[in-house]
Amino acid sequence: MKNVANTTVLGGKEGTLVTRIGAAVRTDGLLRRHKIRLGIGDDAALLAEQSGFETVLSSDQFLEGMHFLKRKHPAEAVGYKALARAVSDLSAMGAEARAFLLNLALPVAKTGKWLDGFLVGLRRAALAAEIALAGGDLSRSERVQISIVVIGRVKRGSAVLRSGAKAGDLIYVSGRLGLAALGLRAMRRGVRAGAGGAGLLVRAHLYPPIRLRLGGWLATNRIANAMIDISDGLSMDLHRVCEATGVGARVEAKKVPRARMSAGLAKRLGVSSGADLDFALNGGDDYELLFTVPRSKARKLRMLVAGAPVTCVGEMARGRSVTLVAENGKESRLEAGGWDPFA
Amino acid sequence: MKNVANTTVLGGKEGTLVTRIGAAVRTDGLLRRHKIRLGIGDDAALLAEQSGFETVLSSDQFLEGMHFLKRKHPAEAVGYKALARAVSDLSAMGAEARAFLLNLALPVAKTGKWLDGFLVGLRRAALAAEIALAGGDLSRSERVQISIVVIGRVKRGSAVLRSGAKAGDLIYVSGRLGLAALGLRAMRRGVRAGAGGAGLLVRAHLYPPIRLRLGGWLATNRIANAMIDISDGLSMDLHRVCEATGVGARVEAKKVPRARMSAGLAKRLGVSSGADLDFALNGGDDYELLFTVPRSKARKLRMLVAGAPVTCVGEMARGRSVTLVAENGKESRLEAGGWDPFA
Repeated sequence: MKNVANTTVLGGKEGTLVTRIGAAVRTDGLLRRHKIRLGIGDDAALLAEQSGFETVLSSDQFLEGMHFLKRKHPAEAVGYKALARAVSDLSAMGAEARAFLLNLALPVAKTGKWLDGFLVGLRRAALAAEIALAGGDLSRSERVQISIVVIGRVKRGSAVLRSGAKAGDLIYVSGRLGLAALGLRAMRRGVRAGAGGAGLLVRAHLYPPIRLRLGGWLATNRIANAMIDISDGLSMDLHRVCEATGVGARVEAKKVPRARMSAGLAKRLGVSSGADLDFALNGGDDYELLFTVPRSKARKLRMLVAGAPVTCVGEMARGRSVTLVAENGKESRLEAGGWDPFA
Repeated sequence: MKNVANTTVLGGKEGTLVTRIGAAVRTDGLLRRHKIRLGIGDDAALLAEQSGFETVLSSDQFLEGMHFLKRKHPAEAVGYKALARAVSDLSAMGAEARAFLLNLALPVAKTGKWLDGFLVGLRRAALAAEIALAGGDLSRSERVQISIVVIGRVKRGSAVLRSGAKAGDLIYVSGRLGLAALGLRAMRRGVRAGAGGAGLLVRAHLYPPIRLRLGGWLATNRIANAMIDISDGLSMDLHRVCEATGVGARVEAKKVPRARMSAGLAKRLGVSSGADLDFALNGGDDYELLFTVPRSKARKLRMLVAGAPVTCVGEMARGRSVTLVAENGKESRLEAGGWDPFA
């Protein structure tokens, strides 16, 4: 991406591609708004710094065959999701998004129509997150490999880490959980989108929510004292908050917001009708936020915060154990059941 | 990388790997020195900002089968070079390096001894560049895929872009050019390292120079008015500077610093004894700096600047053409002959 202006005029195929990417994503207005003096077109991007602020930096990989499937995932969704997933780490810090770099490796055969679709999705996500394309790197490979860097900003000291929760704090999540994992299942089994709500599940899988406004509101108003994005499943990510804070947690099954599946849809998906809870706890891929709130601040939370539904699902607890209270009141240990690519 | 502290205690294999990476690279002192409040262990890294400075951000891919070969490139060199290449973009802006993120995807079979070697090389490069590991992302894949994000800092307005050169400015390069491409050739042909200087070539290919001090000195002292790193070959990268500045250039072949090959070594490499010039102009992979200097400032340059040898190879010229003056005085057009992965 670095060499856009130049290689184009030189007639290189790489340069032509870089130009196409810049033209398709076109976020010049956002570059100016975020005080990014230099984007695509030099060795590196330049972003103005400001005392009293901290730079927030994260990156994320999105790989064909591992995170998405060549034959199942539309190019547009791949572009959208690659960026939305990366931005989710900024949301989880309570940061404002500024810029992203796109590292893209792809086969020559994918540089035509597939790339066009990918860029449409990428631009949609960029506009939704108000984040500017500021560079990256382009290469050839047998499979599509995407790695996205996001950079944002928070006021010094206002970033919400994973480590600030205390016993007694309430645990909240945004949105509904488990939809994305059920959506992937629907896609794999070829369940039609129209079939009893399957479309909603597939959409949740392909186009994850962007929760920057919610994360920013919680940070700016100092409501949340710990936060993480639910990328690997509520159970795994809650364990991470517990580890970082050194306390335990209790989650009430009946409070966990999740998919509403008809018996017919559950059957078509090949899951039991009670599987919605398991998917909500362990499915992963939701990109919703999990955050903890001191009880004294909880009254400031409405059901809808900065456009996102939020639900209290339990509380942080003394000790180190993470407990699930079933609908019948029975308690059991909530295992970290999420995603581990090396398991 | 994000989840280090947590997944470890949870016993995940991913977590164990992340911990091993953090322990092997161990750049905590650099995190403090560069005012990085949060590195590995949360959703994102946090770096202090300072008014009057600009953040410099770049990223680079390093892919098995494309940029390095499974059977030819030692793991340690892969680790070293992946980071050195990325850092080279900071050098080319005249920036100070602060932190990097490591995005690594690899097969399970590579998570043992190969990863150990990789991390030894990565740490060597991190210490040489005084850059701290501040996070990243880990995934599984069939081939090793590395993408490295580097973040640095410059005083506002002091970054050296590609676009500041004027006709009459002198063109300099650091180091000697073409060694890396000849080194790759030596490796591919199995030429022994001891054979008449082949070792020097192979080393240049495996362990590219880190030119942060030179780049920083040229920026801080406002000596260079345009700069780029020579990653794709002198001819290609000089064309990029010319495109960005809107002027032409004249390069004198006799001045271009390059490999000194004996006839015996040239024969073993399967190249003509005059091939050193072609490799210097078009070989690529050098990671030296190319920069332009107004004549009035050239007297400030010694043969060795901030530890790096620098050589004047020609001058920027009116018009748009890029000319090569051969040793016999004959002039010809210098084509942009470098690397294009999609060509």
